[in-house]
Amino acid sequence: MSWENNVRMVEPYVPGEQPNKPKMIKLNTNENPYGPAPGVRQAIAEFDIDRLRLYPDALITGLTQDLAEYYHLKTEQIFVGVGSDDVLALAFLTFFNSGKPILFPDITYSFYDVWAGLYRIPYKTIPLREDFRICMEDYLIENGGIVIANPNAPTGVLESVEDLEIIIQKNQNSVVIIDEAYIDFGGNSCLPLIDKYDNLLVVQTFSKSRSMAGMRIGFAMGNAKLIRYLSDAKFATNSYTMNLPALILGREAVKDVAYFKDTLKKIIKTREWTKQELKNLGFSFTDSYSNFIFASHNECRAKDIFEALRENDIYVRYFPKARIDNYLRISIGTDEEMKLLIEALTKYLKK
Amino acid sequence: MSWENNVRMVEPYVPGEQPNKPKMIKLNTNENPYGPAPGVRQAIAEFDIDRLRLYPDALITGLTQDLAEYYHLKTEQIFVGVGSDDVLALAFLTFFNSGKPILFPDITYSFYDVWAGLYRIPYKTIPLREDFRICMEDYLIENGGIVIANPNAPTGVLESVEDLEIIIQKNQNSVVIIDEAYIDFGGNSCLPLIDKYDNLLVVQTFSKSRSMAGMRIGFAMGNAKLIRYLSDAKFATNSYTMNLPALILGREAVKDVAYFKDTLKKIIKTREWTKQELKNLGFSFTDSYSNFIFASHNECRAKDIFEALRENDIYVRYFPKARIDNYLRISIGTDEEMKLLIEALTKYLKK
Repeated sequence: MSWENNVRMVEPYVPGEQPNKPKMIKLNTNENPYGPAPGVRQAIAEFDIDRLRLYPDALITGLTQDLAEYYHLKTEQIFVGVGSDDVLALAFLTFFNSGKPILFPDITYSFYDVWAGLYRIPYKTIPLREDFRICMEDYLIENGGIVIANPNAPTGVLESVEDLEIIIQKNQNSVVIIDEAYIDFGGNSCLPLIDKYDNLLVVQTFSKSRSMAGMRIGFAMGNAKLIRYLSDAKFATNSYTMNLPALILGREAVKDVAYFKDTLKKIIKTREWTKQELKNLGFSFTDSYSNFIFASHNECRAKDIFEALRENDIYVRYFPKARIDNYLRISIGTDEEMKLLIEALTKYLKK
Repeated sequence: MSWENNVRMVEPYVPGEQPNKPKMIKLNTNENPYGPAPGVRQAIAEFDIDRLRLYPDALITGLTQDLAEYYHLKTEQIFVGVGSDDVLALAFLTFFNSGKPILFPDITYSFYDVWAGLYRIPYKTIPLREDFRICMEDYLIENGGIVIANPNAPTGVLESVEDLEIIIQKNQNSVVIIDEAYIDFGGNSCLPLIDKYDNLLVVQTFSKSRSMAGMRIGFAMGNAKLIRYLSDAKFATNSYTMNLPALILGREAVKDVAYFKDTLKKIIKTREWTKQELKNLGFSFTDSYSNFIFASHNECRAKDIFEALRENDIYVRYFPKARIDNYLRISIGTDEEMKLLIEALTKYLKK
């Protein structure tokens, strides 16, 4: 007998590598190639260091108000956490306690089965169709909850709000989480459905579209009752999750709507340009609505391309997993970065 | 049947109120009256906003190295989280899975029973003696883990390392957490015992002695095996817990040893002056080794004093709980703040 017998054994999530080379092109963790809104710079210049001695606002009042204003919601419909991973983990813990298996696609964000494992939540993965689309009818079976990334990761595939509504509407005894980490890059959000269905939680993040992966801000939107349960669970875990810089700088990212929309427009334009170039090089891919492209070459193995790019300090993501081990997930960088990527690919594929 | 039937019901922790009045004297949440180290100001002036678009270092490399250097440990003996509450919550989840009750004092940090409730960990509270001291023999019963705050909160009472070693040594089949949030204010840490006992986890925080409550940084120290289990649990919850400002500014708070020690010296001096003044006013109190005093007046009810001070915008903490409902917990502020407190008390008690 030892204390080790009582340790909760877990299978940790493995995040994408974070190389740090001077001239690298980093297209492997879906970060935004553009910096945060200009107001963030101003806010940090005016930051009052002495306030750090005090606890931050546990209720996250200002940032929640700004989000409520932007999304036309009441503040009690919004919950803010330390990145969407924090929000999702807390939602799993809070809402998936039925003992029945929760459902999610076989190919999706690879943290879902990790959280299920951590909290001992039974789960059943539902295979995507051959074209990586969801078959909505597959989710009309008994379950303890449902989580769907839309657009999906790492495929970039977007499902329509109308289709997802079927799942939400037919599962009103379960909480349905729609994980919209990538929704701002051209998709339609399920947000308008939260007033109609009290079992729907929509989760978004500042890490991609708002250029703030380094600030750790994520949020959930849902009816006030759902949000209150999440908030209670937070106050039973860690009252003060968001530090003062996050509370202050996060607001600037929400307020500057023009910068936000302009950045999105640029990324979408670059994505569509990259799609065309990849097509010319013999790649095929899903019609991504995210800030990455999930592509497979018609002749070359994904793993070989991945390694060849890596040798040129170009980092993309490769998942050695069933069904997707011949795909690369390529984040959308600046125009310049994508040109260099295409050049490197052209050179490699001509060999 | 509804999704609500499957919600994890919890009893949230209630943090001390965070009033925000221009001329208030805030002595209710044990914050440091002095700002963070001067290097923090410099670091924020040089902060590269554009790096916020990237994910922060999930391994918290730099800050962990600085802590390892300061405490003469290996980096694999240190775990960093979002305040000590985050670290403690994760430790409860990771180490207290035996099904047997965990043990902690009846009067202590009131988050322990909240975490036990959240994670459905059975617990048994052990009454402190009349003088609020721990009787070490009480902890030599079968248990699934032990957590002890030293100095204890809200009493400020310090137990000796020798006495606590009995508990750690006799419970090697359980993880024993010593929560040292207030240890820097004059107590001896159990840290030297971590090489001797692999079941000991020592938890500390930047929120009190390092003037960084607003930055949310806490850490645990223990043998590499314990720390690896904690780290695995973190990577199964949220890979990127610490944002970039915390990673950068936190390092400055560790590096400036002179400022740290000077601040502690000032607070201890003010505490001892305040003890003498409170004694003259008819208060009795434990011999606090923390940055607060836990005091009871010989004639006046604590609740009445609490309310009278509050009317003068002087905030202290009052706990309406059995055994301690005639005590006030008074954080140590600046000399000026404590003089104003003593003046207000003198005036009130003379009425």
